[in-house]
Amino acid sequence: MNVLIVGSTALDSIKTPRERHPRLLGGSASYAAVAASFFAPVKMVGVVGEDFPKSCLRLYRKHKIDLEGLQIVAGKTFHWSGEYETNMNNRRTLKTELGVFETFTPRLPVSYQKSEYVLLANIAPALQHLVLDQMRRPRFVVADTMDLWLNIALPDLLRLLRRLDGFVLNESEAQQLTQEHNLVRAAKKIHRMGPDYVIIKKGEHGAILSARNKLFVAPAFPLEHVVDPTGAGDCFVGGMMGWLAAAGGPVDAHLRRAILYGSVLASYCCEGFGLKALTRVTQAAIERRVKELETLTRF
Amino acid sequence: MNVLIVGSTALDSIKTPRERHPRLLGGSASYAAVAASFFAPVKMVGVVGEDFPKSCLRLYRKHKIDLEGLQIVAGKTFHWSGEYETNMNNRRTLKTELGVFETFTPRLPVSYQKSEYVLLANIAPALQHLVLDQMRRPRFVVADTMDLWLNIALPDLLRLLRRLDGFVLNESEAQQLTQEHNLVRAAKKIHRMGPDYVIIKKGEHGAILSARNKLFVAPAFPLEHVVDPTGAGDCFVGGMMGWLAAAGGPVDAHLRRAILYGSVLASYCCEGFGLKALTRVTQAAIERRVKELETLTRF
Repeated sequence: MNVLIVGSTALDSIKTPRERHPRLLGGSASYAAVAASFFAPVKMVGVVGEDFPKSCLRLYRKHKIDLEGLQIVAGKTFHWSGEYETNMNNRRTLKTELGVFETFTPRLPVSYQKSEYVLLANIAPALQHLVLDQMRRPRFVVADTMDLWLNIALPDLLRLLRRLDGFVLNESEAQQLTQEHNLVRAAKKIHRMGPDYVIIKKGEHGAILSARNKLFVAPAFPLEHVVDPTGAGDCFVGGMMGWLAAAGGPVDAHLRRAILYGSVLASYCCEGFGLKALTRVTQAAIERRVKELETLTRF
Repeated sequence: MNVLIVGSTALDSIKTPRERHPRLLGGSASYAAVAASFFAPVKMVGVVGEDFPKSCLRLYRKHKIDLEGLQIVAGKTFHWSGEYETNMNNRRTLKTELGVFETFTPRLPVSYQKSEYVLLANIAPALQHLVLDQMRRPRFVVADTMDLWLNIALPDLLRLLRRLDGFVLNESEAQQLTQEHNLVRAAKKIHRMGPDYVIIKKGEHGAILSARNKLFVAPAFPLEHVVDPTGAGDCFVGGMMGWLAAAGGPVDAHLRRAILYGSVLASYCCEGFGLKALTRVTQAAIERRVKELETLTRF
């Protein structure tokens, strides 16, 4: 089964203490789509400008991502630039140029509207709503978000939560949304806002899945060298949704394992700038690392 | 097999946003000894003053802790008081009165000197050395520490590391000791300082065990209500050493499971002030929670 993914499509200029990489393919939809593509066919919805490099389109195509829903319009592609501190945990945004993204209205080709698995990757909640409005009874809808939307679009986000099966957010966002420091209690509060599945990302500390009174604690793959963590969260949720769509069957039976695959794809993402490491990964390498992660946590 | 535990024995006055509890039994040796006592006989080394409450001695005895190595001397018992912030993660020390602890010299009764499992709970490295000097070929020696000793007694600590089988420290201490933010790399550096087993505690995020090129990622038990985290790290390492001593046999075969038991004892510790919750726990409850932790991490 395929996955429909909507989110941002961007060019990222990334600076770390060691290196500087301008205009890499980025955006939440790009990362999530490439990650999901290892397991299931992906239909992507997004917008880019006329300046969008051919090499980026080739990268999408290499991963057999359906681009019928990618609008290429007059103007400049969304450009983000950011800088990481030495410990690779703190990053600051240097520049955000929205370009064609400013007036983006997602439009779903007819062939997209029956997708059963829908990932609303990080993008304004109002746009996530617009995608759902165009869908015909999807089976499993998951949204990701970011602190910005909690700050400037909370009513839209709260309304979105009631339309979701699963909601993915990071630790500090969960704490901000619920005013609860304790993540077990935060997850319970988020369940009451709508979603049956709440996934709280804790970066290098892994993730927590709460499925209404059932918890799952997922480890992150312990990396020795983090090159660039940009997009790791998007790869996590993209990998998870791709694996779920490929597994089919009841979500409850597969979600834990899907989260492991998501963690492994996020770990590969961190090992190169932008999508450089992830796009080179093989299925065999993914399976090996999933097994390694299983071994690391077995007792 | 029994466990020898040396560390601080204190009275703690603890304040949280909700409650205030004066003069509870505390200190690294007390927490570790009570935790270890659920699995193996414990021989404790420490010092208290003449003001040490009978109720605290009764608590040790309830847990069948051998007190031959507990010195009761003229003067006041070490008294620590601290306050937790609302999120229970940040704490500040309000007062430290060393009392009889200031001149403490650990002396091991003859019956202690052949103990095979030795836990040097958090205490000045010079005193940890003194204990090892009195031991006859222990089989497995583990030390815990704190940031204070990294700051004021680093040479003693570095010399101690060469005498240890296992070293336990928390995330920020590992980073400080090695000048490495990445914990996988930090663990490797610590191996080069001596110990074959490096255990990095990450609080609510669990722990990492590094056994020279083999890693184990251990989850923490996700608690919904943290009442008082004081002593949780001591209970973790105490529970771990108690379980190892009870298991006997090769450490390599048992350490992962011992860490799980340590995590579970730490979780009970957090559910009451001081040792209040931990001392009431039953073996059956511990086994139940270990099973629950296994279920939480199975995929």
